[in-house]
Amino acid sequence: MIAMDVGGRAGRLRTVLGGAGCEALLVTSLTNVRWLTGFSGSAARVVVLPDELVLVTDGRYGDQARLELDAAGVDGRVTEGRNLAAQLDLLVDLVAGVGRLGLEAEHVSWAAQQGYAGAFGSELVATTGLVERLRLVKDAGEVARIETAADIASEALAQVLPLLAEEPAETEFALALDTEMRRLGAEGPSFETIVAAGPNGGFPHHRPDSRRIVEGDLLVVDFGALVDGYHSDMTRTITVGEPSPERAELLALVTEAEARGVAAVRAGVDAKAVDAACRDYITAAGWGERFTHGTGHGVGLLIHEAPWVNATSTDVLGEGTVVTVEPGVYRGGLGGARVEDTVIVTSDGCRPLTKTPKDLSCLR
Amino acid sequence: MIAMDVGGRAGRLRTVLGGAGCEALLVTSLTNVRWLTGFSGSAARVVVLPDELVLVTDGRYGDQARLELDAAGVDGRVTEGRNLAAQLDLLVDLVAGVGRLGLEAEHVSWAAQQGYAGAFGSELVATTGLVERLRLVKDAGEVARIETAADIASEALAQVLPLLAEEPAETEFALALDTEMRRLGAEGPSFETIVAAGPNGGFPHHRPDSRRIVEGDLLVVDFGALVDGYHSDMTRTITVGEPSPERAELLALVTEAEARGVAAVRAGVDAKAVDAACRDYITAAGWGERFTHGTGHGVGLLIHEAPWVNATSTDVLGEGTVVTVEPGVYRGGLGGARVEDTVIVTSDGCRPLTKTPKDLSCLR
Repeated sequence: MIAMDVGGRAGRLRTVLGGAGCEALLVTSLTNVRWLTGFSGSAARVVVLPDELVLVTDGRYGDQARLELDAAGVDGRVTEGRNLAAQLDLLVDLVAGVGRLGLEAEHVSWAAQQGYAGAFGSELVATTGLVERLRLVKDAGEVARIETAADIASEALAQVLPLLAEEPAETEFALALDTEMRRLGAEGPSFETIVAAGPNGGFPHHRPDSRRIVEGDLLVVDFGALVDGYHSDMTRTITVGEPSPERAELLALVTEAEARGVAAVRAGVDAKAVDAACRDYITAAGWGERFTHGTGHGVGLLIHEAPWVNATSTDVLGEGTVVTVEPGVYRGGLGGARVEDTVIVTSDGCRPLTKTPKDLSCLR
Repeated sequence: MIAMDVGGRAGRLRTVLGGAGCEALLVTSLTNVRWLTGFSGSAARVVVLPDELVLVTDGRYGDQARLELDAAGVDGRVTEGRNLAAQLDLLVDLVAGVGRLGLEAEHVSWAAQQGYAGAFGSELVATTGLVERLRLVKDAGEVARIETAADIASEALAQVLPLLAEEPAETEFALALDTEMRRLGAEGPSFETIVAAGPNGGFPHHRPDSRRIVEGDLLVVDFGALVDGYHSDMTRTITVGEPSPERAELLALVTEAEARGVAAVRAGVDAKAVDAACRDYITAAGWGERFTHGTGHGVGLLIHEAPWVNATSTDVLGEGTVVTVEPGVYRGGLGGARVEDTVIVTSDGCRPLTKTPKDLSCLR
């Protein structure tokens, strides 16, 4: 797998701190901690000082953090406090010389902010999206991980599709898919796999249940794999047996809307224009009210991250960002259809990272 | 499965709002939202007003929320805003008559608090743990879910133990265990399963890797199942083949420490006394420095929740709370040992919900 440039990230962050009005940043988002340091555990805060990076964790994670920072080529040190009070003491010492300390306002609780205000001598500065904006453009190593995850997901779906001939329950099909992704090397599914058959497809975020997948169903499968912390995300709507004309038309509508959305992706384009490309087509067909969610989102260390692809987004798609395009129409008892690809934005369009064909049918 | 009393919970919350200095509470913790309403989706806020409960969500979840509130017997209504701005407008209208509005200070970001301060006419009150304190004592339906999850986990471990004869990789054993839990009806593992063999057991939170589990290893398996949103949590350290005397002694030490911890659990006991029961025994044996984490935690809708069982905890164990007891000693290359049960606290002791025997060996 191509290496990621983890070691260079704190330096890039430092170049934007001044513009945000702070000399140092306390990073409390675990996702941002991972991006800056390679640390993959569940408890850590990072102080990015002008001349040093320090990761503060608890006794469970000290050794792991040292190994991970070292493996990622990060110039930083790790320190451990057995409990939150001891960790706060460490933080107080670390920021003692900082006049204006940035907090990640979206990733620090109001209670924690009040605690820091009482404990630190620094003036606290509410910052928003400093690390997230750096995370927008993926480096080659990050793209390789997302694409590997997408390839594993595609292969897993191909492997388990024949199971549909046995009329499995949604839960059985989801379990087979998740198990196959891990067998193929994924750390796990990238989110709780959605398998929604027939009327269950009428709920955009249906959780698989005991309903059997039967002849005539539209089957919505929305899933992805997780590889080295990076997510993939793909939806396919599978026709099981011969669909009714109404269902076939529904799926054709959404498939075409998705293709129009993908065709609208290009570096420099407003994200809302991609949403409009999908939404206008669906609205013109009379089903705009049943497209009840945004068109897409960024994908990386989080399954949902910036940029946001919806009607009110102010994001512009930058070259090297990775986004989904996933229109859907939900028609209650008739079922639903959603089609989704994850693409990387290029100067003249985009390249799909999810490569499973759209016309998946399982004939009985 | 025994029903939970979801419908009565908002009423109990209302009785403590006055004491916290507020007339109404904006619930932003998704876990607390689920406990109060039964809603299991990934985006919602709940306003608990003196005479009404309103769940605000987005277009993906409106129908699901109505079904789930109804199924749980919750007297409340659901309203949808397509995006965050529209949802904020809904919230502004809902709290228009509230003089002092409680926020969950630990579950609202500093940024969100600033946003609410600008948008709401109400005075914002920082509250802590209002819903969490009500969640401490589990009702019969909640205990049934945790115990069902624990039974599924135990049965799954029994089913996959014979695989150890094949010297599987840690990842393969973890996958088999997770798959078996789902096959037995769990929604999934209750957290990322830890399978740590030999020297990997020296890391308390090792992530399964490609190392094969071989003769002579101490094998730490820390895992649980998820049933209707409720978690189980159990650790067993398995001897693979004949352990060296040093490893056998390590495991015997930790097993006895755990038994002493469980024996110390009783309603009214300080949680830190349970920690001391484990820690003093391990310290007396000379390994206190290698017991690098707290003894345990509460379990419920979260895998880690109050009460906290560690040396600095101020929690007192109440009747009907569910906690883990999980001492461990980590000895680098020699490996590690951890033994953990989840128990429900009773007036005269506790009842283990995790029932797998402690002396698990896999002879070759």
